[in-house]
Amino acid sequence: MKKLLLTGFEPFLDFTINPTEQIVKALDGEKIGPFQIVGKKLPVDFSSSGSILLKEYYEVMPDIIISLGLAAGRTTITPERIAINCKDGEKDNRGIIKKDEKIVENGPDGLFTTLPIREIVDGLNEMNIPAEISNSAGTYLCNLVMYEMLHHLKIHNTSLPSGFIHIPASHEMAIHKRNMPSWSQSDLENAIRNVIKIIGKNE
Amino acid sequence: MKKLLLTGFEPFLDFTINPTEQIVKALDGEKIGPFQIVGKKLPVDFSSSGSILLKEYYEVMPDIIISLGLAAGRTTITPERIAINCKDGEKDNRGIIKKDEKIVENGPDGLFTTLPIREIVDGLNEMNIPAEISNSAGTYLCNLVMYEMLHHLKIHNTSLPSGFIHIPASHEMAIHKRNMPSWSQSDLENAIRNVIKIIGKNE
Amino acid sequence: MKKLLLTGFEPFLDFTINPTEQIVKALDGEKIGPFQIVGKKLPVDFSSSGSILLKEYYEVMPDIIISLGLAAGRTTITPERIAINCKDGEKDNRGIIKKDEKIVENGPDGLFTTLPIREIVDGLNEMNIPAEISNSAGTYLCNLVMYEMLHHLKIHNTSLPSGFIHIPASHEMAIHKRNMPSWSQSDLENAIRNVIKIIGKNE
Amino acid sequence: MKKLLLTGFEPFLDFTINPTEQIVKALDGEKIGPFQIVGKKLPVDFSSSGSILLKEYYEVMPDIIISLGLAAGRTTITPERIAINCKDGEKDNRGIIKKDEKIVENGPDGLFTTLPIREIVDGLNEMNIPAEISNSAGTYLCNLVMYEMLHHLKIHNTSLPSGFIHIPASHEMAIHKRNMPSWSQSDLENAIRNVIKIIGKNE
Repeated sequence: MKKLLLTGFEPFLDFTINPTEQIVKALDGEKIGPFQIVGKKLPVDFSSSGSILLKEYYEVMPDIIISLGLAAGRTTITPERIAINCKDGEKDNRGIIKKDEKIVENGPDGLFTTLPIREIVDGLNEMNIPAEISNSAGTYLCNLVMYEMLHHLKIHNTSLPSGFIHIPASHEMAIHKRNMPSWSQSDLENAIRNVIKIIGKNE
Repeated sequence: MKKLLLTGFEPFLDFTINPTEQIVKALDGEKIGPFQIVGKKLPVDFSSSGSILLKEYYEVMPDIIISLGLAAGRTTITPERIAINCKDGEKDNRGIIKKDEKIVENGPDGLFTTLPIREIVDGLNEMNIPAEISNSAGTYLCNLVMYEMLHHLKIHNTSLPSGFIHIPASHEMAIHKRNMPSWSQSDLENAIRNVIKIIGKNE
Repeated sequence: MKKLLLTGFEPFLDFTINPTEQIVKALDGEKIGPFQIVGKKLPVDFSSSGSILLKEYYEVMPDIIISLGLAAGRTTITPERIAINCKDGEKDNRGIIKKDEKIVENGPDGLFTTLPIREIVDGLNEMNIPAEISNSAGTYLCNLVMYEMLHHLKIHNTSLPSGFIHIPASHEMAIHKRNMPSWSQSDLENAIRNVIKIIGKNE
Repeated sequence: MKKLLLTGFEPFLDFTINPTEQIVKALDGEKIGPFQIVGKKLPVDFSSSGSILLKEYYEVMPDIIISLGLAAGRTTITPERIAINCKDGEKDNRGIIKKDEKIVENGPDGLFTTLPIREIVDGLNEMNIPAEISNSAGTYLCNLVMYEMLHHLKIHNTSLPSGFIHIPASHEMAIHKRNMPSWSQSDLENAIRNVIKIIGKNE
């Protein structure tokens, strides 16, 4: 059976939960389509998140890698088209701020995902699960792990599909916040299960 | 057993479905807490929506009235605080446009809901269902049926609780729309069931 | 010459400036159309804002009253249609929080503005100054001063036009805030001058 | 005197004006800091916009290139960090739709701007002109001309600074649109003049 490495993040900034951590925990060990899911949580840490993802990759030796991240404010499931060679933004969980720095010195400016993002988006929309391709994963930890993994696979000439999917906030996060779009945790979980089924069918 | 009249609307503007119609259909006949639910659909029609609601009221003779409406763009369940004596806005389903007109000549400018909206909002939030009090039901059909019903009950000195709750768009409506916050239809339905349970407990 | 009482507010919440205070200071003493402008600043204080506005009213004895308030997040100039008999929301500048309280015990639920808001909105839009009627002034200090003034005039049977206009944030406020729509201070000032000209022409 | 090639676009989609066209017309011929401005309008046409920009480049032989585009919905001046090798999105003005296509076959996935975008953003914010770096120029014509120019300069080993700046809608465009953030045309024009002054100082 094929293995799918699915990563989520711990909570960050002023959020006390992260729906991607909960999804990854829930799906860990499940069989979805042709895939055995191996779920892993990543820290929100500019210095270690990338290397921890690589370590998980070498331990699991998956056939495909999907990293999940929270995009508070977005209304739909958004597979990312590209990761960019830039670290910038707010404090990570260790208090480190990066400003306009490279992730990989002399790395390419951008790296396209190798996941079938158009099929994922079309497939979800057919199931009435709102989804759109996103053209920016930002410059924070989500973009960093996406870039690090794609770059590592590229320099090792590996054609293994890898990429990143942002999800909306969960209802639990939206309580007492103004104008924060949110989905129920079960809708978010269900959407990711369907992403994996769609990829399974397209294999 | 007490009767609860629950109304929804048919689709309007360029929408082809209305999640409130689906909720009302699904809950019609259910028993929730102390209430037997009687679900009815209203047209989107400045000339008849109010009188059709009054007709349903006299046929059902309910102990409580909750009207539901779609507020595309909102992110949470929003019980309305007040209805105002004004018709204004876009075309209704018969092509009629109203501009700054009174609903009831010489009626009061505003009428507060008689539903326990603070208890509803607090109760939903405790269940991790995002909810907020809204201070405007607009000036379209939603506000009209809320105003007509409250005004009718007031001039008849009836203390029967009545009011209006706006809900977000459903996922089905958000497909191929940009930046439209949405919930799954089952989340929306579940939220309204819980609204009714909360009211039942507070009786 | 006719007198126009124009009020703005001091800064509140975590804002360090309030563009309405700056507008009122700038326009104080100006002659615009048939009006001599008398500009006054109000505190953000549930207990005193209303009575201070009434005091100014009796000192100035204006022919018309326009109160201005900041609506951070709005994109256009928004004359308010109605004030409602409710105090609710975040802490005022003295640390007081109100929850679902009446402004005037036994006062009407809502009171329509007596300013010519449709003419204002149409007139501004013709000048390419984006404007819309708003159906909610909220339940914070803006709504309070609007309600207190309209109620006072009503119980004294005075037909003097009175109302409230919300404006977007200024550019200065939007620096380092995410997704806060803003106009330049000079655009905001210019818009209010034009509001007054439009009212002057319609007199 | 140095030459600065400043491009804007003709109107597109359902907009009847494009504030970037107006800015480019207004600034054409002006001297700002060390630069003589040469303003040019580009079509919204997947097949010709890139080659027309290259033609203008060879005719003008500028020392720096800034392309402007409208980003309806944004609230601030946003210099773009990166252009990506992708054409996707809505119909151009000739009715052509592209879906997930490369701009340059075998071109790099992404290309960073060579404009001093951090200095521009910091400089504008110091003047109370809201500005932020954007991490996505989209996949429509704006991204296309940015990518084509950066790619052309890169394969010719030219260090000439080049990039793209998105601006909010103008007030004129926001009339009768809901929730569209806008600035006055004079604010937009003023912002671009200041961008050029900031670049001039940093030379």
